[in-house]
Amino acid sequence: MDFATSQLKDTPLDPLVKKVYLELEKPSLNDNTADVDRLIKALKRAREFEHVELLNHDFDSISTTLRKGDFKVTAILTEAVGRYELVGVESGDTSARNYGVGVDIGSTRLAFYLLDLSSGILLEKRSVDNPQIPHGEDILTRIIYARNPEHKEELRRELVDCCNQTIAEMSNDHSIDLGEIYSWSFAGNTTMTHFFLGLNSQNICKEPYIPVINRIPLLSVRNLGLNTNPNGIAYVFPNVGSYFGGDILAGILVTGMHRTEEISILVDVGTNAEVVIGNKDWLIGCAGAAGPALEGGVVQVGMMAKPGAIDKVRIDRKTLEPEYTVIGNERPRGICGSGLIDLVAEMFEAGVLDIQGKINTKLDHPRIKIIDDVPAYVVVFSEDSATGEDIAVTEVDIKILLKSKAAMFTILTIVARKVGLELKDIKRFFVAGTFGNHIDPQKAITIGMLPDLPRERYIPVGNTAGVGASQVLLCGRLIREVEEICNRITYIELNVNAELMAEFRGALFLPHTHRELFPSVVAGL
Amino acid sequence: MDFATSQLKDTPLDPLVKKVYLELEKPSLNDNTADVDRLIKALKRAREFEHVELLNHDFDSISTTLRKGDFKVTAILTEAVGRYELVGVESGDTSARNYGVGVDIGSTRLAFYLLDLSSGILLEKRSVDNPQIPHGEDILTRIIYARNPEHKEELRRELVDCCNQTIAEMSNDHSIDLGEIYSWSFAGNTTMTHFFLGLNSQNICKEPYIPVINRIPLLSVRNLGLNTNPNGIAYVFPNVGSYFGGDILAGILVTGMHRTEEISILVDVGTNAEVVIGNKDWLIGCAGAAGPALEGGVVQVGMMAKPGAIDKVRIDRKTLEPEYTVIGNERPRGICGSGLIDLVAEMFEAGVLDIQGKINTKLDHPRIKIIDDVPAYVVVFSEDSATGEDIAVTEVDIKILLKSKAAMFTILTIVARKVGLELKDIKRFFVAGTFGNHIDPQKAITIGMLPDLPRERYIPVGNTAGVGASQVLLCGRLIREVEEICNRITYIELNVNAELMAEFRGALFLPHTHRELFPSVVAGL
Repeated sequence: MDFATSQLKDTPLDPLVKKVYLELEKPSLNDNTADVDRLIKALKRAREFEHVELLNHDFDSISTTLRKGDFKVTAILTEAVGRYELVGVESGDTSARNYGVGVDIGSTRLAFYLLDLSSGILLEKRSVDNPQIPHGEDILTRIIYARNPEHKEELRRELVDCCNQTIAEMSNDHSIDLGEIYSWSFAGNTTMTHFFLGLNSQNICKEPYIPVINRIPLLSVRNLGLNTNPNGIAYVFPNVGSYFGGDILAGILVTGMHRTEEISILVDVGTNAEVVIGNKDWLIGCAGAAGPALEGGVVQVGMMAKPGAIDKVRIDRKTLEPEYTVIGNERPRGICGSGLIDLVAEMFEAGVLDIQGKINTKLDHPRIKIIDDVPAYVVVFSEDSATGEDIAVTEVDIKILLKSKAAMFTILTIVARKVGLELKDIKRFFVAGTFGNHIDPQKAITIGMLPDLPRERYIPVGNTAGVGASQVLLCGRLIREVEEICNRITYIELNVNAELMAEFRGALFLPHTHRELFPSVVAGL
Repeated sequence: MDFATSQLKDTPLDPLVKKVYLELEKPSLNDNTADVDRLIKALKRAREFEHVELLNHDFDSISTTLRKGDFKVTAILTEAVGRYELVGVESGDTSARNYGVGVDIGSTRLAFYLLDLSSGILLEKRSVDNPQIPHGEDILTRIIYARNPEHKEELRRELVDCCNQTIAEMSNDHSIDLGEIYSWSFAGNTTMTHFFLGLNSQNICKEPYIPVINRIPLLSVRNLGLNTNPNGIAYVFPNVGSYFGGDILAGILVTGMHRTEEISILVDVGTNAEVVIGNKDWLIGCAGAAGPALEGGVVQVGMMAKPGAIDKVRIDRKTLEPEYTVIGNERPRGICGSGLIDLVAEMFEAGVLDIQGKINTKLDHPRIKIIDDVPAYVVVFSEDSATGEDIAVTEVDIKILLKSKAAMFTILTIVARKVGLELKDIKRFFVAGTFGNHIDPQKAITIGMLPDLPRERYIPVGNTAGVGASQVLLCGRLIREVEEICNRITYIELNVNAELMAEFRGALFLPHTHRELFPSVVAGL
């Protein structure tokens, strides 16, 4: 079980949407309280729900349900600021059947966590491709696509349909009725959140980078178009800014770094690198372009971490022959981000690459070739690949990767320096995102992407967005914690200045021009 | 100006829906707060709106409006329990244009009060027939009609359409855009409130007489189907019980009887007589069948108070010839409630009726006839009536009226006795409803319907339902006062017991078997 999922098990059970079984006094001439008022009165008598308001305005159906159940009913309540809201009511005692869905709205994949909120158990996690990918693998392309209002609506519809389809399948597999699902929670980056809510994303990507909304109130499932119980509610994680979204807030929540004395870093690398550093007293966040090389599309042989992608590579130091594993045990068709990091680290350690990222073409080896005038290393020969072509990494590809890793390391260095720390002072280093799950921290250190800390400080955390989203469903008061994190975090803009450029240039080398920063790497060479 | 309307002028201006003009800081790289958050932040800075929540979830339109108005905007806010809710936002300064509609949802007539909420001025009051009348003049017939769910919806639709049509005409006459109307308030009896909200009314009229809901939360104009600004809100007065509705609570509010040391009575007579007695420390309410004779339909010559109805009658003591006025100065076609009370009082004082309500057939007069074996008095001969037939009141009609007046007096006596008072202890006697506007208290005393108090204690109050509804729009905190009245009022059921029957039998006489209860009447005979 990964770090994030284990946090889910440790979350206190006090769900955002609660079910309370009540046996009401029946109406009589001596107590002719109206039906809906009778329910509210009984709830107020239970001190916990003293301040309860009606969120569900279908008064007739509340009345019918009360009478059908002979005034023995289960009330469904959700916590709001300073009060509870009555979401709905069901005949009889249904308090054991209360389900929720936590969703990571990733730009590449959506992950669904189906939760039994009466027991606190994660019933199943299921991931599916983001259906928007045909409109652009990278998010900027989708923002441009969304300029057209019909396309904006199409992007929204695709996500909602994806949620509906996936949850229909999952609930069917677990013999849950869609009407028994009363709560959803969504964590995604700012743009994905805007897409999901059908909001205008155009101001996100142009100065001064302003989202439509950061703090999103509890939303109605009915209004979102989700097919679960229409009276249900949906929480959407807030954003700190255009480049610092709810997925990272979920990450902070899951790591608990905002509660400890010791200082931690959380890094999430996708197209952007988002970095948070801090502890219970302060939190600093920043984001910067870092990761394009680590996602599919930019590096020629690059691809997403899915079946057919090489995700691990080792190169024999003597023969320079590679060994690799392929996701899904298929014939390889490309290399994913973690595979690329592995590959470059191994090439460097095997002497195929020099510290500038140049391939040693003096080596006489069948795998070292010149392709279109550019030196390259062939990982898979055409006869073994799924494409029928060589899978090779060129110096151009490596340069792109080095820029990404240099950006990552620069961001980390600058952020630490801003708060007067050195990277070695960091006690826990959480690595999140797809990156965090697949990467070998050792290899990322070898290429100088991550600082040379003791390995045990690196904690790959798994899908913190999905787990964080799930946590607030299991424990509603965590919403206040998320809002507090959002309030506390100081977002700093990384201005392209001389200091940053100097850092960046030094970090372009393998592992770094200042080799003393990477003693463990240097020792192994 | 009647009592109620004068209260409207004295209502403090602090509207339920407020408009606040704000000039927001424009976004910059130094302040990249999201659009919606920027608005909320600015409102929170104004201390009054520290606790503000988003009621309007169309975040894109808020963002667009902010940007269209160059971040100079008018926020529209409504007060809720412990917080404000952001209803909407408009570009520029529109704070001077804020309109609301108070509605009396009467079973016979609907009255609309169009209010300018920036100045507090009543722009116009307009009344229209209740469009449900074709489904039954009396409310019970409509409840039976509403058994069929399609009919229930039809009854709802008719009221909503009536509201939409009337307000479209009124706002057009006052050059107001429907989108500038953000608030409605409705006061009606419990059944009319249920019809208006499309709620099941079937349990109202059968033991133990349970409404679907009494305390209605603020509703969305969009959900109600009203054509004014869809983000607007609607307040619906709560009910105390099935036979004690929001119209009476509005009446209490308007009279202010819940605020004074001295004890007042408020009486509203329609098909039912609703009575409230009390002061700032206590309020007792009750309702009972009293008024069928005073509405159209039951008494043969009875009709509603509309054009063609005789509303005032005097009978010459010597010639026994009547003089009368007709609403709309038309040829008469019937007699309305106040006309009937006048007529019976005059017949009694002229010696045409004895104390048992028998017509003195020994009098040889062309107006005293036997019609279908029943003695009768002809008010209008066929040649002068609009129907071409005599308009006459028979002993049967008089018996019905006497039952109604006896019921009224009995309810008043019993209620006063329950609280240990005599009717003469009542300092202010508010007479509400159509009844209150048209009736001559002197004549009602003559027939023994109302107690023989000094005339100046009687205050006809006019349309308190419409005015009360309007008051909460002008001054939102009055909603809390209405809720408190609703909490404080003790509703007592009038059980048909020996005491009540004895009182009732005594009250069936003119003015009463205990003539000492009506000294001023007896003195005049």
